[in-house]
Amino acid sequence: MMPSLRIAVVGASGYSGEELVRLIARHPKLELTTLTSRAYDGKKAGQVISGLPSQAAAIAFQNLPPAEVAAGIDVAILALPHGVASEYALPLRKAGKTVIDLSADFRVKDAAVYEEFYHQAHPAPQLLADAVYALPELHREAIKKSDLIAVPGCYPTSILLALAPALKEKLIEPKSIVINSLSGISGAGKKAEIGLLYVELNENMRAYGVPRHRHLSEIEQEIGLLAGEKNPVTFVPHLVPLSRGMETTISATLAKKTSASELQKIYESFYAKEPFVAVKSGEELPEVKHVVRTNKAEIAARIDERTSRALFFSCIDNLGKGAAGQAIQALNVRFGFEETLGLSV
Amino acid sequence: MMPSLRIAVVGASGYSGEELVRLIARHPKLELTTLTSRAYDGKKAGQVISGLPSQAAAIAFQNLPPAEVAAGIDVAILALPHGVASEYALPLRKAGKTVIDLSADFRVKDAAVYEEFYHQAHPAPQLLADAVYALPELHREAIKKSDLIAVPGCYPTSILLALAPALKEKLIEPKSIVINSLSGISGAGKKAEIGLLYVELNENMRAYGVPRHRHLSEIEQEIGLLAGEKNPVTFVPHLVPLSRGMETTISATLAKKTSASELQKIYESFYAKEPFVAVKSGEELPEVKHVVRTNKAEIAARIDERTSRALFFSCIDNLGKGAAGQAIQALNVRFGFEETLGLSV
Amino acid sequence: MMPSLRIAVVGASGYSGEELVRLIARHPKLELTTLTSRAYDGKKAGQVISGLPSQAAAIAFQNLPPAEVAAGIDVAILALPHGVASEYALPLRKAGKTVIDLSADFRVKDAAVYEEFYHQAHPAPQLLADAVYALPELHREAIKKSDLIAVPGCYPTSILLALAPALKEKLIEPKSIVINSLSGISGAGKKAEIGLLYVELNENMRAYGVPRHRHLSEIEQEIGLLAGEKNPVTFVPHLVPLSRGMETTISATLAKKTSASELQKIYESFYAKEPFVAVKSGEELPEVKHVVRTNKAEIAARIDERTSRALFFSCIDNLGKGAAGQAIQALNVRFGFEETLGLSV
Amino acid sequence: MMPSLRIAVVGASGYSGEELVRLIARHPKLELTTLTSRAYDGKKAGQVISGLPSQAAAIAFQNLPPAEVAAGIDVAILALPHGVASEYALPLRKAGKTVIDLSADFRVKDAAVYEEFYHQAHPAPQLLADAVYALPELHREAIKKSDLIAVPGCYPTSILLALAPALKEKLIEPKSIVINSLSGISGAGKKAEIGLLYVELNENMRAYGVPRHRHLSEIEQEIGLLAGEKNPVTFVPHLVPLSRGMETTISATLAKKTSASELQKIYESFYAKEPFVAVKSGEELPEVKHVVRTNKAEIAARIDERTSRALFFSCIDNLGKGAAGQAIQALNVRFGFEETLGLSV
Repeated sequence: MMPSLRIAVVGASGYSGEELVRLIARHPKLELTTLTSRAYDGKKAGQVISGLPSQAAAIAFQNLPPAEVAAGIDVAILALPHGVASEYALPLRKAGKTVIDLSADFRVKDAAVYEEFYHQAHPAPQLLADAVYALPELHREAIKKSDLIAVPGCYPTSILLALAPALKEKLIEPKSIVINSLSGISGAGKKAEIGLLYVELNENMRAYGVPRHRHLSEIEQEIGLLAGEKNPVTFVPHLVPLSRGMETTISATLAKKTSASELQKIYESFYAKEPFVAVKSGEELPEVKHVVRTNKAEIAARIDERTSRALFFSCIDNLGKGAAGQAIQALNVRFGFEETLGLSV
Repeated sequence: MMPSLRIAVVGASGYSGEELVRLIARHPKLELTTLTSRAYDGKKAGQVISGLPSQAAAIAFQNLPPAEVAAGIDVAILALPHGVASEYALPLRKAGKTVIDLSADFRVKDAAVYEEFYHQAHPAPQLLADAVYALPELHREAIKKSDLIAVPGCYPTSILLALAPALKEKLIEPKSIVINSLSGISGAGKKAEIGLLYVELNENMRAYGVPRHRHLSEIEQEIGLLAGEKNPVTFVPHLVPLSRGMETTISATLAKKTSASELQKIYESFYAKEPFVAVKSGEELPEVKHVVRTNKAEIAARIDERTSRALFFSCIDNLGKGAAGQAIQALNVRFGFEETLGLSV
Repeated sequence: MMPSLRIAVVGASGYSGEELVRLIARHPKLELTTLTSRAYDGKKAGQVISGLPSQAAAIAFQNLPPAEVAAGIDVAILALPHGVASEYALPLRKAGKTVIDLSADFRVKDAAVYEEFYHQAHPAPQLLADAVYALPELHREAIKKSDLIAVPGCYPTSILLALAPALKEKLIEPKSIVINSLSGISGAGKKAEIGLLYVELNENMRAYGVPRHRHLSEIEQEIGLLAGEKNPVTFVPHLVPLSRGMETTISATLAKKTSASELQKIYESFYAKEPFVAVKSGEELPEVKHVVRTNKAEIAARIDERTSRALFFSCIDNLGKGAAGQAIQALNVRFGFEETLGLSV
Repeated sequence: MMPSLRIAVVGASGYSGEELVRLIARHPKLELTTLTSRAYDGKKAGQVISGLPSQAAAIAFQNLPPAEVAAGIDVAILALPHGVASEYALPLRKAGKTVIDLSADFRVKDAAVYEEFYHQAHPAPQLLADAVYALPELHREAIKKSDLIAVPGCYPTSILLALAPALKEKLIEPKSIVINSLSGISGAGKKAEIGLLYVELNENMRAYGVPRHRHLSEIEQEIGLLAGEKNPVTFVPHLVPLSRGMETTISATLAKKTSASELQKIYESFYAKEPFVAVKSGEELPEVKHVVRTNKAEIAARIDERTSRALFFSCIDNLGKGAAGQAIQALNVRFGFEETLGLSV
């Protein structure tokens, strides 16, 4: 029997980091060895993160410099801001450790696109060639062989899962894609800002980040790979008052006449063996409450005959399949564990 | 000085009806004379509707048949389901009363379209010719002369205000319009259904009603009038967890090259004299918290140069500008009161 | 190795029933054999209950009469209204099955008290002598030997855990106890009532059920056993806008001078070996977010020197330790499983 | 006809300050002349505060030192932290202006008690003798004659209104009073702190601030005045997930046998002429939704015969009757306006 993998979570003080620690603590093949956070240096995990079993709760946060994380671990999971993630990835990769990165640093293959969307030169372009865009439903085989695993953003995950079968089958015009996504507040991060206060966000909602949200860089890269041609798409994110959850609605012009039942069959067949993707049928559309606190994605595809468009829907938990859950799924794939190990469906 | 108008609110037991009663009770030129509700027959308004001044709170609900509402009033405001509204509108119009109807019965000019979307023959087609679609920003002059005032739906209000200037100026391709709207829960009505319970909707969200939501009938009618041609459009409504508020995001392909500043100027100029429409400039997009409990609409228009599309945004209170507030605004227009009388901006 | 126990969940359509199904589906020693519900007869569990693994999701609800539940099961868990629960408990006990009942029918030993608080004669008084009040922290040994296990109410659980050490040590005057509890909305059940709609409860709160909430019957019974004398106490429940969670605050006059550190030591010692009770120290008080979706109770005891009173606090998840989780904990105790098996701490 | 009063709002950047600006902007006898805020210096009111009419929205925030506020105004309303409020009150009173202060600086008559609860020497003890504790229902006549009007805290307002009739009539034992209050999140202020983020507070609740919340200083002062003797009381505040609203539940031992109908009569009679206090009768208890966005307080008094205690309940809007609304009510009293002018009931 394979022994447990020793895991470091680097930057465990945000909402994705907290969720990672919860998932690792319950994963039968992972041992949480190292926890780093500048903000919580010296505190016990259990003082900051709720819902931990006692062993994990007793682990103390350390404020470790990049060069010292590698000691005594097999895998480092980085829950850091973009840019900072590379500062840790470089020495960790040099030390031969597998790196699973939740930031944007290694999602986009083209350093020029990174610079265009993140307004800074890529901090570690020499690592890009080895990185894999770790959406297992699209890149499972590549994940198995990579030691630099870039976990997709939450919006891209919800969008690409909804679009992949239609793009692969060339059912829709890539240029016609219009995406609207609704995100729960945890997607905006754990920052002491007036704009994130309860009273500012409760009973409120708004669109933001148009027309050029950073996630477009990876969305357009992956749509391009699926469609065989690269095009810009329209993407409008919205902030809505719930803690966790994401809903995405996409419209696109049909490239060829397709019936509702053909479309349904294509989607069901594409995801038939995927443990975390549920294709809704009949009248039902995805709902956040079906996926929250799981690694599941609910998706649906519908035909709007009046406009000759297709409509695609998906719901995920932005901290689950949209971040920490997907990181664990990718880790399971990479190390040959059962893909659902330690995850809820 | 003009004496007060005597008002009946018919079907005052839903959320729009409650809001109507609150607005009428504070309006200096309106006298709430008659309140009808089958469910609340015999109860005092104050037992059912919170936030009423004492005089209005003391009025008792009656269960009046259609033929008896006209007695002693000048204007009847109907907050009834479609179909039922016509049963009251017919005798009230026969009695010469001005009818302001919040249902869908008199919004669509074409009885065949009504039948297509509402799955029943139109209950009073003989009245359709006299009805006005009471979005004051588009049909102010017609409202002044009509005694059958059809208050637009909440979704159509938020959509048409966002699109009107661009359509009038032929800046966008009407066929390319894709609309996503987010509605607070009060938009789903006050019905004792499991699906509307707190626990079912809190921390949840979903799209619904695709691809053929009933409001498309009036949305497409009015877009057709603005654009000079009739086309189907894509419309996806969503239910999100807040009590009141609506956000709409629309994309459309530009029909001609338009700069951001030209677009901004066109919008500001179109709404320059409108007391209830605020056009956002700069980086800011509309937010629900700016409009909730008011009759205001915030709108914004942006260019997405990467895709040659325009993006339009609006926020309203679905019970305010989306229902009861707009009814009062239309009443103010019809009877020559100051348009903002009794309403918040 | 002991084979799995075959479980029936009777009345699985409410929030406690749903949570039970989720917990049983993940419990390594339990096999969900039978699911009954009148409302959902014929539906699959996965159509109604979210977050189930596929095997459990495929089980169909049946509408079984009381006499037919016993076939093919070892244990029946009843998630039924009081009164109805007895109709099932009687034939199930006659058939020799272990019954775990979440209703109030078997919590109160004295049939006269039941009648006083539930306004009906006790429906199965002959079973009362064999029933155990299944708060494991107080009655663990008795649970091991009982086949009629009455799971405490959510309010009583949160109250008794907070008071037990102080009452046992005679630190407080039983007559002086004043209890205020705050409950999330799922505590009010899944009923199609206007009063439980999202719009009615969101941004609202209120006290209710005074001065004689039904749970007082079991609260006073158990306080009496702990204190060695029976007295009425003051209990005020409140409904607050969150889906899951309960907070209880209790004050009582000190019976003898007690320092904060003595009180703290008594509480820590009383619960030292309890896997599900965490005693907060220092400045921290219990928080709902630490216990939601777990079987954990956080409690705290403080001295108010200015008034010579003690203050007690607790937080639980009303559907977890307050209902379904506690049922599974009691089942684990009864059948000799590890007490935390299948439960979160 | 009296001309308008010219008003300065000092420190208008918090939630109480915003609400004050909204109320003043709609008050027919008040003219908002000066707005100060360090944080928003140079911004227009309408950029920061939603729901303002256009004239008020155009007023710019200034960063004025204490000595310069007095110019061109009649009344200054201070929405500042305690301690800082005195720095402004001193020069304003010297300049002969009426000061309405929402901080704690002038609520407590005894500077030693202030120091005990606020951990600093009183910053302006020479002004204390002239200050009035501005709960109009208790001190209306004194308010009429004062130019230093200390607006009570939100918790004290909800508590004192619920207790006053019972204390005046000596129906209850003052020493036995136990108070539990539930506050919406806006009561915690508008501060960029992790603990006030949406994700930290949504779906969460907790008690805090025991056993010695600062508001006890004014609560015990006023209970002492009503009862004719000074005693410490038990007070436990709780934070619950809604934006605005406060619920208070109080228990106290009956000092003499009192029937429910006697108690009801005493409460109704005490508040018979109060425009903002509604005494609930029958089964109904106060609800936050009845008072939010108004200056109203709902209260109820009940007998718990089983324990010989009385129970008192109240609901207010913590930003309305608990802060800004009460400031305007006190201003109306002071300047002889109709007491409800510009306020909702």
